[in-house]
Amino acid sequence: MTMFDRIAFVGIGLINGSLAKDCRRLGLARSLVAISRNQGTLDEALALGLVDEASTHPGDMIPDADLIILGVPVAATGIATRAIAPHMTADSVLTDVGSIKAQVIRDVRTELPETTRFVPAHPVAGTERSGPSAAIEHLFEQRRCILTPDEQTDPEAIERVSALWQAVGSEIDIMTAEHHDRVLAVTSHLPHLLAFNIVSMGEDYEAVLDKEVLRYAAGGFTDFTRIAASDPVMWRDVFLNNKTAMLEVIGRYVEDLMALQRAIRWDEGDVLIEKFTQARQARQEVTRMGQAYERRPVQQRKDDS
Amino acid sequence: MTMFDRIAFVGIGLINGSLAKDCRRLGLARSLVAISRNQGTLDEALALGLVDEASTHPGDMIPDADLIILGVPVAATGIATRAIAPHMTADSVLTDVGSIKAQVIRDVRTELPETTRFVPAHPVAGTERSGPSAAIEHLFEQRRCILTPDEQTDPEAIERVSALWQAVGSEIDIMTAEHHDRVLAVTSHLPHLLAFNIVSMGEDYEAVLDKEVLRYAAGGFTDFTRIAASDPVMWRDVFLNNKTAMLEVIGRYVEDLMALQRAIRWDEGDVLIEKFTQARQARQEVTRMGQAYERRPVQQRKDDS
Repeated sequence: MTMFDRIAFVGIGLINGSLAKDCRRLGLARSLVAISRNQGTLDEALALGLVDEASTHPGDMIPDADLIILGVPVAATGIATRAIAPHMTADSVLTDVGSIKAQVIRDVRTELPETTRFVPAHPVAGTERSGPSAAIEHLFEQRRCILTPDEQTDPEAIERVSALWQAVGSEIDIMTAEHHDRVLAVTSHLPHLLAFNIVSMGEDYEAVLDKEVLRYAAGGFTDFTRIAASDPVMWRDVFLNNKTAMLEVIGRYVEDLMALQRAIRWDEGDVLIEKFTQARQARQEVTRMGQAYERRPVQQRKDDS
Repeated sequence: MTMFDRIAFVGIGLINGSLAKDCRRLGLARSLVAISRNQGTLDEALALGLVDEASTHPGDMIPDADLIILGVPVAATGIATRAIAPHMTADSVLTDVGSIKAQVIRDVRTELPETTRFVPAHPVAGTERSGPSAAIEHLFEQRRCILTPDEQTDPEAIERVSALWQAVGSEIDIMTAEHHDRVLAVTSHLPHLLAFNIVSMGEDYEAVLDKEVLRYAAGGFTDFTRIAASDPVMWRDVFLNNKTAMLEVIGRYVEDLMALQRAIRWDEGDVLIEKFTQARQARQEVTRMGQAYERRPVQQRKDDS
């Protein structure tokens, strides 16, 4: 099952860390290494056994890597690529795991204008946790992994990256970077922005309502707090780097929300029923597609009770 | 542990059905009965063993009940109360489980202007499922149950209703109906409206994007589909009957969302980081309070794969 000699993870947080765990479990590479600007992150990754070796110096790790996976906040793509570019060999395949694609591709191309072996990728999976300690096995099973190569991308490089994601249980979709960014603005970026917004609004209410917003969170608010616990830096970068699509979907969302507000104001119950019934059907479809989650209470620690 | 002779459930869906299960398990009443206008619902409740007896005629079930629990969509409160009022005895305690309180109290008072034994209640718990088959045990453990009595409410009636909810694991809070409706507009009603809105917007996108919105739901959208699968009729009633608070919180929400949109447009990353960091802290607080959930993949049925 060994597919690679050495996989180099550039940044080792939730996604790269989880992928490293699966690579280890499945024996997909002879060695797994990490680089990061942050020695603390690397120490943590080594202590957790995510990788065999780690260094803050790309020159120590990159030359022998036949697969290099960028797993840094998307705004750091340019800096990270610049750091590793001088050490890459002609054969090595470069990929990433970023939540946006068009801007990531522009940033990589600025540093590596000639490369044909960069395969932009986005595994659509995650949890609200971040950092090396957030890494878990089986994160990518039954999930989709989107690749956004263009005409110049080497088919053999696409094949190798596809095989990796299939090995950890994902299904591959291929589309343009622009289409990816538009779809994900609806399915992922907007849900996160809405969650951040209601939870920070809830915090403002706290001052008025004396912790009550959080005490009655089980009524629905709690589902939003989970998503809103996601990494602030990562999400800032996603929103700012997928600006066009974000501004469009926020506009549409508010337009639709105003229609619901108007229906509430004017007692137009039929309008509400129609919209809500449509929404309910979507849940059945998501469950059928194997993309649904159910919720279970988080165990309260003894010292909190 | 027997607290009541006969509990009569008026309507027997997710909440009343789950409560009936816990009453049975804990032996809280000598007999459990249900009334509904819908014989099919009663047949289902009897087949599931939720109650001992059931009838579409209140006169068959209500006279011997020392506790009567309204568990109908809130807009049906008036009709349900009118149906049972002639059969209630002076001793029986009346309560409800509605998600809004001020309008429910007005509707009950219209039918029972003199009563001192109505204790308005709202157990803040639930799932996205509805109907008798949605009933599950332990639904109310570690959850809050809000009571909104006024000066006229008989303290002994409050005590009996409190004891019931405490027996099934809930903690009791007492506040005014108006305060309840304002707090729950933020913690429960607005989250549901936002979820309904994004999911029905996602459905509209489907036509354009060929099922892609749902395929990539694991990116965040899926969390909203769970809430948006909730009962459309129940939620229509909640929104229309808590209109003032809903219009206020929607207004505030959009105001804050516009501030985030502006920050995205003008690359004000610091504004985003500040808001998102605040939201992340709320999650920690919700977890500490024992009100958080984590998500687990819903098992795909074999015939769907």
